[in-house]
Amino acid sequence: MKESLTIIKVGGAIIDDELKFEKFLTAFSAVQGKKILVHGGGKVATDLANSLGLEVKMINGRRITDDQMIDLVVMTYGGSINKKIVARLIAKGENAVGLTGADGDSIRSVKRPIKNGIDFGWVGDVIDVNVAFISDLLNQEIIPVMAPLTHDGEGNLLNTNADTIASELASALARRFEVSLNFVFDKKGVMKDISDPNSLIKSITATDYDQLKQNHVIADGMLPKLDNAFSTLSEGVEEVRLLNVSALKQLQNPDFDEYTTIH
Amino acid sequence: MKESLTIIKVGGAIIDDELKFEKFLTAFSAVQGKKILVHGGGKVATDLANSLGLEVKMINGRRITDDQMIDLVVMTYGGSINKKIVARLIAKGENAVGLTGADGDSIRSVKRPIKNGIDFGWVGDVIDVNVAFISDLLNQEIIPVMAPLTHDGEGNLLNTNADTIASELASALARRFEVSLNFVFDKKGVMKDISDPNSLIKSITATDYDQLKQNHVIADGMLPKLDNAFSTLSEGVEEVRLLNVSALKQLQNPDFDEYTTIH
Repeated sequence: MKESLTIIKVGGAIIDDELKFEKFLTAFSAVQGKKILVHGGGKVATDLANSLGLEVKMINGRRITDDQMIDLVVMTYGGSINKKIVARLIAKGENAVGLTGADGDSIRSVKRPIKNGIDFGWVGDVIDVNVAFISDLLNQEIIPVMAPLTHDGEGNLLNTNADTIASELASALARRFEVSLNFVFDKKGVMKDISDPNSLIKSITATDYDQLKQNHVIADGMLPKLDNAFSTLSEGVEEVRLLNVSALKQLQNPDFDEYTTIH
Repeated sequence: MKESLTIIKVGGAIIDDELKFEKFLTAFSAVQGKKILVHGGGKVATDLANSLGLEVKMINGRRITDDQMIDLVVMTYGGSINKKIVARLIAKGENAVGLTGADGDSIRSVKRPIKNGIDFGWVGDVIDVNVAFISDLLNQEIIPVMAPLTHDGEGNLLNTNADTIASELASALARRFEVSLNFVFDKKGVMKDISDPNSLIKSITATDYDQLKQNHVIADGMLPKLDNAFSTLSEGVEEVRLLNVSALKQLQNPDFDEYTTIH
């Protein structure tokens, strides 16, 4: 039987709020067994760009990672956020190592080609995960803490969406481990009615998902998250959950189900 | 017989000069066997502070690492410099992982106590090196790339001199490996007369060192470097060298001796 591995992705809105983030790190530390933390970036790179008087270029609401921005993203996501998480997890009695996709050649990507005239800049689409390297850390009871950065094998670091990194890690590691993939964010999960806190949808199958999309219950930012989720399931991931920090605390309580499971 | 380990420290003046730095990385890649790269910071943190309009506090010519400065140091030394080195080494066919002392709990330190009324801020003095973790990377043929940062085990990152980190690693790893410690900088080594490029001192013993200090041939910034060097020799390090990038290329040529050996 394969050993369990819990992959937990935490988004920028939680990282940007020190109180929430401290609660998250405490809940994450309490998760038993082998685990990986994937973190987003939050607004610290944009804040730094603003402080430096640099223009943050956007196309269709998406940020362009130009030469200046990739430097700031590496500094903030790969430097300050990643290293502070590692130092704080160790203070909580865990052992952890902070990684970008370059470190240990852990995640390779290709620079996204220009499409319909849009050049997103230094953005990478994942092509390979180094399962042996990451497994070796896990087997030493060291938590890999992954920044949303990959590399192209030619000396360049690339900006890569944290949800994508979590999903790619989950799919690749499902060969060796029984993987659950957990997206921690501000909501309890997928809500039928965003204004009604009692409208949590606890379970979504592929058939449910088609209907929810048709009825526009799921739209916008949630779509790529759920598309990623179903894709990892097809590659052997056991379970995908969308949950908040309170639910993360109860992740290993079998009687607790206040989150969305995708299966 | 213990396996050889080459620890190479490169200073800020080389890192700040892209042409020199590229030559250094090429020479470093050509060094055979197990190796560790320790890098300094250069002036990128100070440049960033200036761009942000922050004041860099100094006492007696030494920078104070206040709350703002430790953030910038973690971003630049632990983020941009460290990660770019890793990506570029992999592009040269090596495998490498970038670390601060927090990663894998690899180097712990204590915050330097206030002395004679001087508070250096977030500066750490090394107390422990995690030999097992670093040896495991080396045994996987992965090059640890160490930023000049440590942690206190209580969640804080600390600024630590790169020469000190290289020396502490050398002393600790001398228990498991036959260690040579190499300080790569702009000069050929210790010069008898700084204005005469033919005045290289090829060999310095403890007795020589006392004389050179008395005659003021060695002074200022070179003193802590050599003090560190002699201290590592007493803890089992085989050889300490001061050399430039050209000599690094010939490090494993037994007929080449255009550097300073401390023994």
